[in-house]
Amino acid sequence: MKIGILGGGQLARMLALAGYPLGFEFVVLCPAADACAAPMSEHLCAGFDDSEALQLLASRVDRVTYEFESVPAETVEYLNDLVPVYPPPQALATSRDRLHEKKLFNKLGIDTAPFMAVESLDDLQQAAARIGLPAILKTRTLGYDGKGQQRLHEHSQLSSAWEEIDAAAAILEGLVPFERELSIIAARSLSGEMVFYPLCENRHEAGILHFSTSLQDDPMQELAEDYAQRLLEHLDYVGVVAIEFFQLDDQLLANEMAPRVHNSGHWTIEGAVTSQFENHLRAVAGLPLGSTELTGHSGMLNLIGELPDIDAVLAIPGAHLHLYGKAPQPGRKLGHITLCMNSEKKLKQALTQMPGI
Amino acid sequence: MKIGILGGGQLARMLALAGYPLGFEFVVLCPAADACAAPMSEHLCAGFDDSEALQLLASRVDRVTYEFESVPAETVEYLNDLVPVYPPPQALATSRDRLHEKKLFNKLGIDTAPFMAVESLDDLQQAAARIGLPAILKTRTLGYDGKGQQRLHEHSQLSSAWEEIDAAAAILEGLVPFERELSIIAARSLSGEMVFYPLCENRHEAGILHFSTSLQDDPMQELAEDYAQRLLEHLDYVGVVAIEFFQLDDQLLANEMAPRVHNSGHWTIEGAVTSQFENHLRAVAGLPLGSTELTGHSGMLNLIGELPDIDAVLAIPGAHLHLYGKAPQPGRKLGHITLCMNSEKKLKQALTQMPGI
Repeated sequence: MKIGILGGGQLARMLALAGYPLGFEFVVLCPAADACAAPMSEHLCAGFDDSEALQLLASRVDRVTYEFESVPAETVEYLNDLVPVYPPPQALATSRDRLHEKKLFNKLGIDTAPFMAVESLDDLQQAAARIGLPAILKTRTLGYDGKGQQRLHEHSQLSSAWEEIDAAAAILEGLVPFERELSIIAARSLSGEMVFYPLCENRHEAGILHFSTSLQDDPMQELAEDYAQRLLEHLDYVGVVAIEFFQLDDQLLANEMAPRVHNSGHWTIEGAVTSQFENHLRAVAGLPLGSTELTGHSGMLNLIGELPDIDAVLAIPGAHLHLYGKAPQPGRKLGHITLCMNSEKKLKQALTQMPGI
Repeated sequence: MKIGILGGGQLARMLALAGYPLGFEFVVLCPAADACAAPMSEHLCAGFDDSEALQLLASRVDRVTYEFESVPAETVEYLNDLVPVYPPPQALATSRDRLHEKKLFNKLGIDTAPFMAVESLDDLQQAAARIGLPAILKTRTLGYDGKGQQRLHEHSQLSSAWEEIDAAAAILEGLVPFERELSIIAARSLSGEMVFYPLCENRHEAGILHFSTSLQDDPMQELAEDYAQRLLEHLDYVGVVAIEFFQLDDQLLANEMAPRVHNSGHWTIEGAVTSQFENHLRAVAGLPLGSTELTGHSGMLNLIGELPDIDAVLAIPGAHLHLYGKAPQPGRKLGHITLCMNSEKKLKQALTQMPGI
């Protein structure tokens, strides 16, 4: 089976590396000439609005998937008439728009932080009065890694914040004094089979995921799986989804969903029997899903902006290096390291040797 | 770092898949247009005697390695003047010739079955008288997967056997009533660091490896490591080596070495902390070697000639599929399945579900 991927970044790269052993081949559509999935796939270097390239892609593959949710809706609709696209376009449409996404969460009985739609400064002022400050103003679309977000602490900030986001449609969301940031990675196959990975705990820095740890028998696992199941079934979902939560006491507040493999699931490559990448491809290809059981205690550290001393990293037993083949640049995700150990104590010890923890 | 690989079969394919996460890129030289490493590498489709292609390869890469020991000596010598080739040419030369190989084993104090050089029917008759029958006549070069071998049970077979191998230089080797076929995978880096994987037990069918199981705390481990160390140090070796042994009581008789990643080490992808493929590349690139510790109890089954029901295989928890992207053909290695379980009992149970065990 040949699988097309929209986007040629590290997620496409890791999908391809996970997919060859299953016998798949890959065609990546990405406008960047130096797409980091290019060396291990067939690369169509073209824009997502290039209908000739989309036709060529559709003619060369049996399925299309995508590695980022900002792929234009028109691209996916156009392709979906020619070849099956998974996860389904309705999941993409939902995740692209924070307002739709949060409304859907609430409709399905999934808790969220309080939020209100904001389409004008007037809306923003009313929302700030209703929800209270501090709160976060988020553009409805095109936000990732903390982009398109502003924290508001005082009412005097509202008008400049509204100017800053350039009058884009937005939501105001209450700032929750959460105890932990968690995420669940789940997968649903074409046949409706579902699997759920153990929750992981995430730490962000400057809005970018910095570190994730897999959790064993976490008390919030059952609720997270219940929420994920509601979402997957409602969307008639196919593929891997990630849902990020804030934990507040015994509540999980869904922050956002990503209809794709997710940075907080990279630890599954070594830390679970089947990786999120393999399970995404199994789902998309209509194959049985693989076990999500843990293989040990794992921690995943993103390498952002610059690379550590590679020799020192590789000398740590149980450290697994994943480089994305990108030139260093501030704020850029260049790779990640997963530590996978057979006890929590060993994981904690190994972490002390890691750069930037 | 860019690494060139001579040969584009499944070993090159798995090297490339293991190497991208370390940040390497790959150029594969292989005359087969449908080389199974081609989809995930840059493919130079040319013969091993094509000096222009060899020059091009050398100009594009920082290191060259190879995936089979029948690569012509001239090719390696030519390349080695232009770019470092690992494992070193003297290891390749040794392994290409069964007589040199066995003489070296004995010189290093590594036991073997009795053997004698055979260059004529007269030699063969003398060797059969000295070693006794049954014995195996093996051509000195170009043998793999049982090719170029004949079992001799009676003296009346000698002259037709000699005709059969077309008067090629050969050895006659005593047939050993061994208890187990074992192999050890070891690696030595540019800096002289060495690591050894736990022994595995192998089962061949019609001369082709059928099934390998990783062993835990095997009583022969220490001797096998001692033998591997002698060989690696003598050859000033860089990369992964495999040595196949026959076990007879508390003796290990070295059968052959392979100066490359080896089929009996495929279980290391899931069954060891660092795979043989990653350690080969780490060695060749001058990086620290990775841990060879077991992650569980593993068994690897080759898929030969035809593929089993893929859905059924993937539905077995802990089964990992590795397809090589080849068209089915009798006797062809199309892929392998590794079962990696957290107990020997579970491994044995899972094996009962596997095709062809």
